[in-house]
Amino acid sequence: MSVHATPASPAFLADAIAALGNLLGNRLSTGQAIRDQHGTDISHLPPAAPDAVAFAQSTQDVAEIVKICARYGVPIIPFGTGTSLEGHITAPLGGVSLDVSQMNQVLAVNTADLDAAVQPGVTRKTLNTYIRDTGLFFPIDPGADASLGGMAATRASGTNAVRYGTMRENVLALEVVTATGSVIRTGGRARKSAAGYDLTRLFVGSEGTLGVITEVTLRLYGIPEKMAAAVCSFDSLKGAVDTVIATIQAGIPIARIELLDDVQIGMLNTYAKLGYPAKDTLFMEFHGTEAGVKEQAEMVQAIAMDNGGGNFAWTSQAEERSRLWQARHDAVWANMQARPGWGIWPTDVCVPISRLAEVVLATKQDVVEAGIIAPVVGHVGDGNFHLTVLMKPDDPAYLAKVEAVNDKMVTRALAAGGTCTGEHGIGVGKMKYMAAEHGESVAAMEAIKKALDPQNIMNPGKIFAVPGAAVRH
Amino acid sequence: MSVHATPASPAFLADAIAALGNLLGNRLSTGQAIRDQHGTDISHLPPAAPDAVAFAQSTQDVAEIVKICARYGVPIIPFGTGTSLEGHITAPLGGVSLDVSQMNQVLAVNTADLDAAVQPGVTRKTLNTYIRDTGLFFPIDPGADASLGGMAATRASGTNAVRYGTMRENVLALEVVTATGSVIRTGGRARKSAAGYDLTRLFVGSEGTLGVITEVTLRLYGIPEKMAAAVCSFDSLKGAVDTVIATIQAGIPIARIELLDDVQIGMLNTYAKLGYPAKDTLFMEFHGTEAGVKEQAEMVQAIAMDNGGGNFAWTSQAEERSRLWQARHDAVWANMQARPGWGIWPTDVCVPISRLAEVVLATKQDVVEAGIIAPVVGHVGDGNFHLTVLMKPDDPAYLAKVEAVNDKMVTRALAAGGTCTGEHGIGVGKMKYMAAEHGESVAAMEAIKKALDPQNIMNPGKIFAVPGAAVRH
Repeated sequence: MSVHATPASPAFLADAIAALGNLLGNRLSTGQAIRDQHGTDISHLPPAAPDAVAFAQSTQDVAEIVKICARYGVPIIPFGTGTSLEGHITAPLGGVSLDVSQMNQVLAVNTADLDAAVQPGVTRKTLNTYIRDTGLFFPIDPGADASLGGMAATRASGTNAVRYGTMRENVLALEVVTATGSVIRTGGRARKSAAGYDLTRLFVGSEGTLGVITEVTLRLYGIPEKMAAAVCSFDSLKGAVDTVIATIQAGIPIARIELLDDVQIGMLNTYAKLGYPAKDTLFMEFHGTEAGVKEQAEMVQAIAMDNGGGNFAWTSQAEERSRLWQARHDAVWANMQARPGWGIWPTDVCVPISRLAEVVLATKQDVVEAGIIAPVVGHVGDGNFHLTVLMKPDDPAYLAKVEAVNDKMVTRALAAGGTCTGEHGIGVGKMKYMAAEHGESVAAMEAIKKALDPQNIMNPGKIFAVPGAAVRH
Repeated sequence: MSVHATPASPAFLADAIAALGNLLGNRLSTGQAIRDQHGTDISHLPPAAPDAVAFAQSTQDVAEIVKICARYGVPIIPFGTGTSLEGHITAPLGGVSLDVSQMNQVLAVNTADLDAAVQPGVTRKTLNTYIRDTGLFFPIDPGADASLGGMAATRASGTNAVRYGTMRENVLALEVVTATGSVIRTGGRARKSAAGYDLTRLFVGSEGTLGVITEVTLRLYGIPEKMAAAVCSFDSLKGAVDTVIATIQAGIPIARIELLDDVQIGMLNTYAKLGYPAKDTLFMEFHGTEAGVKEQAEMVQAIAMDNGGGNFAWTSQAEERSRLWQARHDAVWANMQARPGWGIWPTDVCVPISRLAEVVLATKQDVVEAGIIAPVVGHVGDGNFHLTVLMKPDDPAYLAKVEAVNDKMVTRALAAGGTCTGEHGIGVGKMKYMAAEHGESVAAMEAIKKALDPQNIMNPGKIFAVPGAAVRH
């Protein structure tokens, strides 16, 4: 069994676009610039423009758009902010990009229940700004200010996952328009349920291939009374990772624990005129009461000292804390500026933390041997790390080297019991690793895909390789 | 669309039993006592014995048993400890009970990664005994010493869920034998992944209707340095619930927060000669460092005082802490002894915590008006509560009253945005509420069921109502 797909026939496509135009008026665009923008994410992958872009303003809009596309067999590609990293929003088979960015209302905030319902185009920063006065916050923070619908669709995470989990743990319920245009609700506002299949978790991470997310109900958290940040550099990567392992084993509820390797620290020092030792370094954050964060910081400091950490510095001053996290956030800009005119290819894997040091070290060795430039940053509490490869433009030989390093990194992560992507998703870029990671489970995923989207119109050409399909470039 | 099922034809059933006998020898039983035992759980529902019981000792056994049953269209009912509460392990359409209790090996414990892999027949207490010397523990604690395979299949939780989550959050990966006898692995040992559909979460809570779980990889946690327990009684249920809401909003990482209503406290006092005030009462537990648990307890004490709590007492002495949790554990025995010769019907719902007080109070009013006896206990931090109805034997009028109270409780929970079951599952007993809770989503669940089990041989007659099926009694 496998998932097949073909572009819509030109006549059907034209009929679909005409019907969508009748429905949406000037909220349907076939202009080249809009189409190109919607076929381009921030990955290294080649863009692929859709045939048209439909701007939805309501669940009803989405349902009508899907019904029209279903009638004519036209692919639908959900689009939020376009910040995906593996080609999720490209249109390799053409079709209609369904832009939900105008569905940007916060629908409800329940402070007693610590939850909120949002339309899919609300971004994570918009939500946090909206709820700031409630004393609550939403912790999931991928690099971009992504839409919450897109974050649910790609099972996003970020720097807070070690304490607060990922979108997997923080989406309570969804409203979804299925491939037939039905509107279903998965889950509810109860914190837990044992009533039937967990459709919420099935749609989270399904990358638009099973339906279009039109509403997201999220868990919120109380803003901690106190937050403190710490930084510590290590003589060895193993010392840094062992510090993380011991911290988690001790049950210290660390909120963030980020690794930046010596290469990354060097680029950051150059970019932001920082004076960090050019060593493997941990950036950390503690959440709790005033006494609690002090105790956590001192416990982790002791653990770090036992593992070769030096210069452990911690602070609960807001300004210094902000400076540290600004530096972490600047990493990607530092990398882009390190080679002006070059691009970047961010890729990630995730492994059991006991295997993290060896997988990172072997990957760094590959990077050196290949002669490419690729700093490492990692959400090390989860065993998740990124290789942010600097991409020399128009150099097929360099690209081939990068692809080989990426292949080896994924293969090594899978051999260590890990996954080909901890948080970026499969999209187009990592389809080739699905069989190696999941084996016979891919057949079960494909059976579900076929059951819920028999025409394969929901974001076709993503997650599952499409054998023999006439992919357009 | 709906899920149909019929019992196997008598000739095919006989062929299947003969083939299973050849495979398993004396590990296949058709004796009446064994069959009856495997068709009876601890619910109030009528037992329904399978035609045979097959004892598996390996994944290979399970795969072979499933292949034989698939060939002859014979239902398969996975069986762990038989402690389900909604008829999950009964055989309303006959077939083969697949007993995995002899698959009871702990396969791996990874202390650095805080995970363990177990066969499905390992019980939660066995696992915790096995890992005691590692300084780690597994927190999910339903009332029974259930098998971890069964706990995964029913998405179990318990008293620690407010801090540590349920089986949904704590199963990292599964090995599953599908309806065709294929062996698949879902997930891996990485803490997070964005690689494809979340099959792990799909099988967790699927109650054996999509496949047989043959291995479970679980998250473990460090045993806290210090644990403290507290008890506090309230003049009003609302005061108790508001204490919980404020505690969680404040970000206090409370490990357990359990409600016992005035009726339950009264029965416990009688049973165990305790002297608690017969009021709505919270039992609590705090995990952390010595300073941390003291701080948590004092903060919650202040919140409780603001909400009409009296006699707040907390202790970190192991003996007193054990006495408190023994009392909580004894609740079910106290209830059974309150009316010798009667049975119990434990039922549960879960609602957004802001609605908990009103739903519990209205339910207690229904109980009084119906003239039935039904104390309330609740995992109140999750908005989950149980009505433990004392069941008068052989009294159809009493049974009808209980059914009416249960119906009203579920209807009220759904109207409040909750679920018909927080942790007991659907099984046979709550099938009738699936449509009211999930609406059009049930069709998506049925499509998945049909895609993965087209013959409907995996635990048929559970979760989905079987219209027109010749159910045997």
